[in-house]
Amino acid sequence: MNYKMIIQYDGTRYNGWQRQSTTENTIQGKLEAILTKMTGTPVEIQGAGRTDAGVHAKGQVAHFQIDTDKTPEEIKNYINTYLPDDIGVLTLTQASPRFHSRLNAIGKIYCYHIAKDRAHNIFNRKYVYVHPEPLDVEAMKMATIYLHGQHDFKSFCGNGHIKKSTVRAIHNIQIEEDENEIRMTFHGNGFLQYMVRILAGTLIEVGEGKRDPHTMIELLETKDRKQAGATAPACGLTLVQVLYD
Amino acid sequence: MNYKMIIQYDGTRYNGWQRQSTTENTIQGKLEAILTKMTGTPVEIQGAGRTDAGVHAKGQVAHFQIDTDKTPEEIKNYINTYLPDDIGVLTLTQASPRFHSRLNAIGKIYCYHIAKDRAHNIFNRKYVYVHPEPLDVEAMKMATIYLHGQHDFKSFCGNGHIKKSTVRAIHNIQIEEDENEIRMTFHGNGFLQYMVRILAGTLIEVGEGKRDPHTMIELLETKDRKQAGATAPACGLTLVQVLYD
Repeated sequence: MNYKMIIQYDGTRYNGWQRQSTTENTIQGKLEAILTKMTGTPVEIQGAGRTDAGVHAKGQVAHFQIDTDKTPEEIKNYINTYLPDDIGVLTLTQASPRFHSRLNAIGKIYCYHIAKDRAHNIFNRKYVYVHPEPLDVEAMKMATIYLHGQHDFKSFCGNGHIKKSTVRAIHNIQIEEDENEIRMTFHGNGFLQYMVRILAGTLIEVGEGKRDPHTMIELLETKDRKQAGATAPACGLTLVQVLYD
Repeated sequence: MNYKMIIQYDGTRYNGWQRQSTTENTIQGKLEAILTKMTGTPVEIQGAGRTDAGVHAKGQVAHFQIDTDKTPEEIKNYINTYLPDDIGVLTLTQASPRFHSRLNAIGKIYCYHIAKDRAHNIFNRKYVYVHPEPLDVEAMKMATIYLHGQHDFKSFCGNGHIKKSTVRAIHNIQIEEDENEIRMTFHGNGFLQYMVRILAGTLIEVGEGKRDPHTMIELLETKDRKQAGATAPACGLTLVQVLYD
């Protein structure tokens, strides 16, 4: 049977979503170990988004195939019982045999949180990037206009040796500001490695006045990672939602 | 000069607000050490609420007297620079020479957070008490009616040897419920040691069906701590606001 689950995690102390041979401290690894223990046979889980080390998720989606007599609710409760306190399964349901969390995803929403001040963000300090210097939010919004739509985002890709297409569509980048923070919400059909963090870092440099918002056109055209901004710190990033048809 | 400050902290790793001779790991101790370093002479800080070990604050108020050439903004920035990442000074202003954070307080607001489910509360896990069994919120609301007003709250006082008056007035206990949590907000003119947590623990027992809400009348009359409920865990409690005229 094929199962779909929605997962939430505080990524602070993990080496990201994806299981690696060198280390077991990954979200995927934790979940696989519990399901393997439950079923008695090795279980492989596929996640929709390969979040980097330190990145959080409020709505990661994953699927896996197992044979069990347990109901979906019982599987969910079993997993949650053995998960550490910084990972939780929100929902677990039977999926069609063909459902694939990553290949069927038609979009993803990420949110990047910039805190204006350390003292006012004590309770969410692990989920924000503290940037006390003021940012020109209007300039940042202007820059997003050039990033909307379908483009080759090679300049914003952390993997310089990528062979596959680096064309993606950004449906929207929304920037909101309140007294304590600036939130940048990225909605696209898919994101390259480090792409959201490089977009966030580049927009922050626009906000700092180090980049003209109108230079985004040339930046996309150069297809050169070195021309884009710094990769913004992982702690500020959260995978909010994975979208399906 | 007399100064007033509003402080926010995650109390998880502290032995409460009040400096103790046996340990230096208190909020008051941290703040005093920084101000003593800044001025070069010992500084004593008085806080409005002596929050217990593990209790959080979004609006603790404290005052202290120092002589300095620095502006209030400079003092605040100095303190925030040296504070650990789980304590922050939100505001710091000059106060009248007679202002006393505890003696002048006319009321306090505390909030107790009960999470219905661990998995849905990953990001605020250190600020809630997870209680997965359902609670009868209507019964809990009924019980609060008997607690409102001025009473002798000796049954809800953690200090059995208290000599001073145990009469306090609770202006309101508001209980709100949403999908993920139950919030109990306590507004009173002052609270005895552990009083909010014993009230919370007793109301939880009402919600569990272990106590009849109408027994609150007799419970107040017994003036016996043993008749009240368990002291609810510290992690769920936050000092929200201290009120002045």
